[in-house]
Amino acid sequence: MRAEIITIGDELLRGFVVDTNAAYIGKKLLEVGIKPFWVTTVGDDQNTLLQAFTLAAQRVELVFVTGGLGPTHDDVTKKVACKFFDSELVFNQLVFKKIVELFQQRGVEMPAINEEQAWIPKKAQLILNEVGTAPGFIFNKDGCYFFIMPGVPQEMKAMMEGAVIPFLINHKLTQNQTIQYQILRTTGIMESQLYEKLSVDLANIENLVELAFVPTVRGVDLRLTAIGKSAKECRRRIASAESLIRQKVDDYVYGVNEETLEQKVAELLFANKQTIAVAESCTGGLISNMLTNISGSSHYFERGIVAYSNQAKVDILGVSIETLRKFGAVSSETAGEMAEGVRRLARTNFGLSTTGIAGPTGGTPQKPVGLVYIGLANGSTTIVEKYQFHHDRLRNKQRTAYAALNLLRRRLLKKV
Amino acid sequence: MRAEIITIGDELLRGFVVDTNAAYIGKKLLEVGIKPFWVTTVGDDQNTLLQAFTLAAQRVELVFVTGGLGPTHDDVTKKVACKFFDSELVFNQLVFKKIVELFQQRGVEMPAINEEQAWIPKKAQLILNEVGTAPGFIFNKDGCYFFIMPGVPQEMKAMMEGAVIPFLINHKLTQNQTIQYQILRTTGIMESQLYEKLSVDLANIENLVELAFVPTVRGVDLRLTAIGKSAKECRRRIASAESLIRQKVDDYVYGVNEETLEQKVAELLFANKQTIAVAESCTGGLISNMLTNISGSSHYFERGIVAYSNQAKVDILGVSIETLRKFGAVSSETAGEMAEGVRRLARTNFGLSTTGIAGPTGGTPQKPVGLVYIGLANGSTTIVEKYQFHHDRLRNKQRTAYAALNLLRRRLLKKV
Repeated sequence: MRAEIITIGDELLRGFVVDTNAAYIGKKLLEVGIKPFWVTTVGDDQNTLLQAFTLAAQRVELVFVTGGLGPTHDDVTKKVACKFFDSELVFNQLVFKKIVELFQQRGVEMPAINEEQAWIPKKAQLILNEVGTAPGFIFNKDGCYFFIMPGVPQEMKAMMEGAVIPFLINHKLTQNQTIQYQILRTTGIMESQLYEKLSVDLANIENLVELAFVPTVRGVDLRLTAIGKSAKECRRRIASAESLIRQKVDDYVYGVNEETLEQKVAELLFANKQTIAVAESCTGGLISNMLTNISGSSHYFERGIVAYSNQAKVDILGVSIETLRKFGAVSSETAGEMAEGVRRLARTNFGLSTTGIAGPTGGTPQKPVGLVYIGLANGSTTIVEKYQFHHDRLRNKQRTAYAALNLLRRRLLKKV
Repeated sequence: MRAEIITIGDELLRGFVVDTNAAYIGKKLLEVGIKPFWVTTVGDDQNTLLQAFTLAAQRVELVFVTGGLGPTHDDVTKKVACKFFDSELVFNQLVFKKIVELFQQRGVEMPAINEEQAWIPKKAQLILNEVGTAPGFIFNKDGCYFFIMPGVPQEMKAMMEGAVIPFLINHKLTQNQTIQYQILRTTGIMESQLYEKLSVDLANIENLVELAFVPTVRGVDLRLTAIGKSAKECRRRIASAESLIRQKVDDYVYGVNEETLEQKVAELLFANKQTIAVAESCTGGLISNMLTNISGSSHYFERGIVAYSNQAKVDILGVSIETLRKFGAVSSETAGEMAEGVRRLARTNFGLSTTGIAGPTGGTPQKPVGLVYIGLANGSTTIVEKYQFHHDRLRNKQRTAYAALNLLRRRLLKKV
């Protein structure tokens, strides 16, 4: 089965929005062995979209469409679908009820234009929208399936997972071959260093899987891809390759697939019944924000202090005026006292701190932009690590947060 | 002139890489009055790419191609171009010299495989690569131009700016018209409500500009696009349309184009020489993080407290135990005391607070997931706003942070 993805919207063509929907759908299809063959993006124009539908139906058997299902005048997908599949619209009570309920939940009166979304092409099988107002549709024309979904990513994702993928499986539209992949996420090591550490085993690894190095701001992801007849065989090959990789670089691997560093740290804290408080200067709340993105974080996260001013460092963290005077706010000593202070005041197992010069201004020859100290106190010992990052403020904040959480992870695993 | 963008790569189809090149090229073309009409993405396969070339040449006059110019076996673009334009390859000394030099600069021996990149289609006009090894090409076939560039974003961007856009201008391939756009960013109002408020003026607005509603997690962006003979005339029409829009919904417009809400708030605080401290519960540090993303934030941001536990709310914000016992941590009263407490202790002009149930767990019938209180204190008055958001934890954090910063913005503008 060949698949095409059609994404719709002037904002995509004009580059106001980067098309992430196509990538998401491509990935989801791969998981059920369907290799996407073609992606088409067109604007909010009926004739052009009709052309795109026609071309897609000629070259593939499965078409996945997103966008243009909103209630406003520039949403043309439903109109084009009615034309292409020669279908009229009928009013659907169930959809209408769901839209009305959604507005009630939000405590907002339903604008009249949303009623339009309850009119459904008669020939379509309905996909209910569990997170928004626009329903999706499945059409079949001469053996070619069209799956039409909204462009809002979370609505499209809910439909792909809840309706489209199950439909593909139930109708035996998935392939007799599967593509499995796994990502090993590393941090604290450069791409070329990883490559060197793995180089002697590279041939063996690549006999088992395709290996790709994907650098991100968090670190380097290793992507292992296996193609084969059965998921089981692919998983086995991936597991063997993973084991070869971990033999060489396990210390740097913090997670698998979608796992984040903050999740990993949260799991370790939770499993050990340990608690943490955070004192941030240069990261400005980013670490607290990451840790509290995890549901249930109140079990281990007690408080976070963003002590931006020196006064705040003294007042609420108990850093000594003497230390600030002698060594400055960006110093190993201050980082240590911040971590110890927040731990003591919050009565937690760990205190984690950051202080540095995020930039782009504020650097000096002695303390350049990108200089960062990270402190971790557990009551008996305090570790301080020094880093020299670069000039970009947001990236410096992110790199510092990752390095801090990675220090905590290594400590929780007793590797430091 | 119609334009099509073709991006090439299995990585794109499989969703391992999100296609940012198409968005970049689309934006660049708009600046010279060329509206992208179609985007095609295909994999690293010669026949498929040949099909894509053929279709593009049939429907547009300008084709922009990226990807598949690397030195390895899965890079097929040059081969397909030779076939499509019926051209042979010739060895180019200049290109070879540049490749050798690039490796010398990097202190790396040139792999033999890179020599292949110095073979150039005879019928092509060359685009030298100033940042990488793969040269680009310009072809013309029956009046249709193909601009072929590498897929590495920084190499493609250097070619677009340094060679392709100048070529378009020199060859008078740009439109004798310009496309100007402006985005008005709103928050605190739903798409359909905005639409209703603007509906009576919609015809007038659309006589001046194209108007698009673009919902994001931050709010709804209004995109105004004007196409005309001169930039001046377009700007004038955009200004008139903006004025019509602002007459109806100005209170919700926080910024223009790339401006963020946190930037806007930072500017207002800075201009008024006012300072702020933040006390966060359900947002977990997100507001502090947003405010400290702005360079120079130490001028107005004094401290942030992430008071996750009740103990922290009492200890470092001075919320009364009585209030917590009587009304609970998620209450109007607690939000008010948090804002007042952090302001008093930090000695700032404003104290901003959030408390709520981010979810997905922790809700009760009385206090469901998504219930949020936002407090803003300035020493004389304290405002508390109540919101009912939804079930998604990260979105609830983001929506709360936006609502809080928007409350602060309105206060700074004396609208509340």
